[in-house]
Amino acid sequence: MEKVTVKTKEKCYDVLIGSGLLDGAGKLIMSALGRTCRAMIVSDDAVYPLYGKRLEASLIKEGFSVSSFVFKNGEESKNLSVYGELLESCAEAGITRSDILIALGGGVTGDMTGFAAATYLRCVKFVQIPTTLLADVDSSVGGKTGVNLDAGKNLVGAFYQPEVVICDVDTLKTLTDLIMSDGISEMIKYGMICDEELFEMMESGEFFEKTEECIARCVKIKSDIVSRDEFDNGERQLLNFGHTIGHAIEKASSLKMTHGHAVAAGMAVISRAAENAGISEKCYDRLCAVLEKYSLPRECAFSDEELSGYMRSDKKRKGDSITFVVPEKIGKCVLKTVSAEKIPEILKLGRGE
Amino acid sequence: MEKVTVKTKEKCYDVLIGSGLLDGAGKLIMSALGRTCRAMIVSDDAVYPLYGKRLEASLIKEGFSVSSFVFKNGEESKNLSVYGELLESCAEAGITRSDILIALGGGVTGDMTGFAAATYLRCVKFVQIPTTLLADVDSSVGGKTGVNLDAGKNLVGAFYQPEVVICDVDTLKTLTDLIMSDGISEMIKYGMICDEELFEMMESGEFFEKTEECIARCVKIKSDIVSRDEFDNGERQLLNFGHTIGHAIEKASSLKMTHGHAVAAGMAVISRAAENAGISEKCYDRLCAVLEKYSLPRECAFSDEELSGYMRSDKKRKGDSITFVVPEKIGKCVLKTVSAEKIPEILKLGRGE
Repeated sequence: MEKVTVKTKEKCYDVLIGSGLLDGAGKLIMSALGRTCRAMIVSDDAVYPLYGKRLEASLIKEGFSVSSFVFKNGEESKNLSVYGELLESCAEAGITRSDILIALGGGVTGDMTGFAAATYLRCVKFVQIPTTLLADVDSSVGGKTGVNLDAGKNLVGAFYQPEVVICDVDTLKTLTDLIMSDGISEMIKYGMICDEELFEMMESGEFFEKTEECIARCVKIKSDIVSRDEFDNGERQLLNFGHTIGHAIEKASSLKMTHGHAVAAGMAVISRAAENAGISEKCYDRLCAVLEKYSLPRECAFSDEELSGYMRSDKKRKGDSITFVVPEKIGKCVLKTVSAEKIPEILKLGRGE
Repeated sequence: MEKVTVKTKEKCYDVLIGSGLLDGAGKLIMSALGRTCRAMIVSDDAVYPLYGKRLEASLIKEGFSVSSFVFKNGEESKNLSVYGELLESCAEAGITRSDILIALGGGVTGDMTGFAAATYLRCVKFVQIPTTLLADVDSSVGGKTGVNLDAGKNLVGAFYQPEVVICDVDTLKTLTDLIMSDGISEMIKYGMICDEELFEMMESGEFFEKTEECIARCVKIKSDIVSRDEFDNGERQLLNFGHTIGHAIEKASSLKMTHGHAVAAGMAVISRAAENAGISEKCYDRLCAVLEKYSLPRECAFSDEELSGYMRSDKKRKGDSITFVVPEKIGKCVLKTVSAEKIPEILKLGRGE
C-alpha cells in the first residue's frame, strides 16, 4: 500500500492507495476518525451495485450505522437538484454534526458528496473512496467540491477536505477503456506540468505494471501544489493545464464528452498554440503520440466562436482577463494571463492556423 | 453613526449603524473593498421597490456595474430552488471571483445571499445591507449563512463573513409592527443572556429613543461571543436561547409564525421550564411582561409530541443529546446538555405542568 499525507491549513489527511482496501474500509475509517458514528454512503447506480454492499458490510462490522443514497450515474446528476435530494436524505437518516458522509464512486460522486458535507448543517465530516482512476489522481485531492449549474461546470461549490481517501486499485478493473483513459489523460497532464519521468512511464506503458506508484506520484504532485496554494490563487492554476479549453469543449459537447477526453483535446490545442506562438519548445508531437496511444482525442470538433463563448463564462476568469497554462517543454508548464479578447487568436493558433 | 468592528479568524469587518446610510452605500462599499467591480444586488419583491433603485444609483455613482436579482418575499423563498436561480443569475450577469453580491433586505435575503456568495465559484465577496431590525441585530453578524430544507430550517449553509454591514436605521420606519417586534424579540434575548441593562432599556421603552445604541449593543454582544467561538462549538450556543424550541414552533407552524415570534415563545417556554425545574431564579414573569409589552407570544399552540419530533431533527443536536440554553437569571444564561429522551419532560415543565 502507498500512503501520501496531504497537508492543508485546516488538517492533514492520508490518501491510501492499494489493492483489496475496500473490505477493510470500515477499519481504515474508524482509525482516521477515532470513533464510529452514523455513516451515509453516497454512490451512483453504476457503482453501488458493484461495491456498495461490501463497503456497508465492512462499516457495520466495525460498528457504524449505515444509510445510503444512490443517484443516477453520470455528469448530468451533478446538479443542485440531486444535491438537494442528497441533503434531504441526510436529514431523513438523522445525520447529525458528529456523523459522516462517504463518497463511493468517481469524480461526480466525490465532488457532490464533498459539497454536501461542506454545507449540510454547515459542515459534517466526509470520506472519499474513489473508484475511477480520474478520481484517484484528481478529484480526491485538493478539497475542491461542487456541482454544475446550467450556466457551466463546477460554478457552485466549496473548498473542503476529506478525513481520509481510500483508493482501492482493484476497482479500476471494472472500468471501461473510456473511463480508464479519462484518468490516464489527467496523469499525462501531471507529467506535462512538472514530471517528465511520469510522462515517460505513461509513454512506455510502464504505468500498467506500476499503477499504485504512478497514482501515488500524481497524488503527491497535486498535494504539494495544493498545500502551497490551497485557495487556488496562484501556482495551483498549473493543475488547470488543458482545462480552460477542456471545460469549454465539455460544455460545447453538452457534457457528452467526458472530462478526461475534453482535457486531452484541451492540452493538445493549447500546446499547439504555445508552440505556434513560439512560447514552448517542440512538445506538441510527443504529447499527441502519447494521447493517441491511449485513444485520447488531440483536437475538437467545435467552432472557435462556440468555445470562446464558454471560455468567457469560465469561473477561472478574473475581471476581463483569462489565465492559460502553457507548456515551456515536457515536464514544465507556466501561467500566462491574457486579455479575454485574445481568446479567438489563441484558439486559431491551436488549430495550427 | 455607531461602528462595531467584528473580528473573525479570517477577517475583520465593520458593522455601520446610522441614519441616511443607504444613499452613501456605494461610497461605503468602495471604501471597504478598496475598488469598484460588478455588483449583484439581491433583494425580495417587498424591499427592492422601496430601496433597490436608491442603492443602485449610489453604486453606479461610485463606478460599480450593477445587476439585480429579486425574489418573492418570505421565508418560503429561502430554499435551494431560489438559491439555484440566484446562482444562475450571477453566472448570466457575468459575476466573476473579483465581483460582489449585495444582500439588501431581511434575514432571508442575508442568509441566502451569504450562502450564494460562499459557494458561487467557491466564494465571492459579499456585503450586507439589512433592512429589518432582526437582520440588524442577528443575521448580519456571525457569518452563519444558509437556506432551509424541507426537513428543517437552515439545514444547509456555510460559515461566511461579509466585507461590511451597513444598517440604515431609516429603513426600520417602513417595517410593520409584526416585523419590528421580531427584532425586538431578539434584542430581549440579548438582554436575557448577558445584558440586564439592555433588558431594562427594552422594558422601559428607552429603546425607541436610543435605537442605534441598542442595535450597536446587540451587535457588540454577538460579535464578542462569535469571535470567541466562530464555528459554534461552545459559548456561541448561548445565542440560541429560545431557539431550540423556537425553531420547532416555527416548523410546526409551517413557517407561518415568524422567527422572532417563535423565539419569544421559545424563550418563555424554556424559562418557565428552568424556573419549574429549580434551575433559574424567578425571571419568567418579568420576561413575559416585556414580551407582552411588544405584543410577542409567551406560549405556543402546538402539542408537545409535535414539537419533540421537530426538536429531534434540530441540527444543533449532536448524537443523541440536545443542548438547551437556560436562564439562571435576567442577564445570565447557561448551557445544559441533556439526553434527547428528556425533551417531553422539559416541554411539560415549560407548560407549567
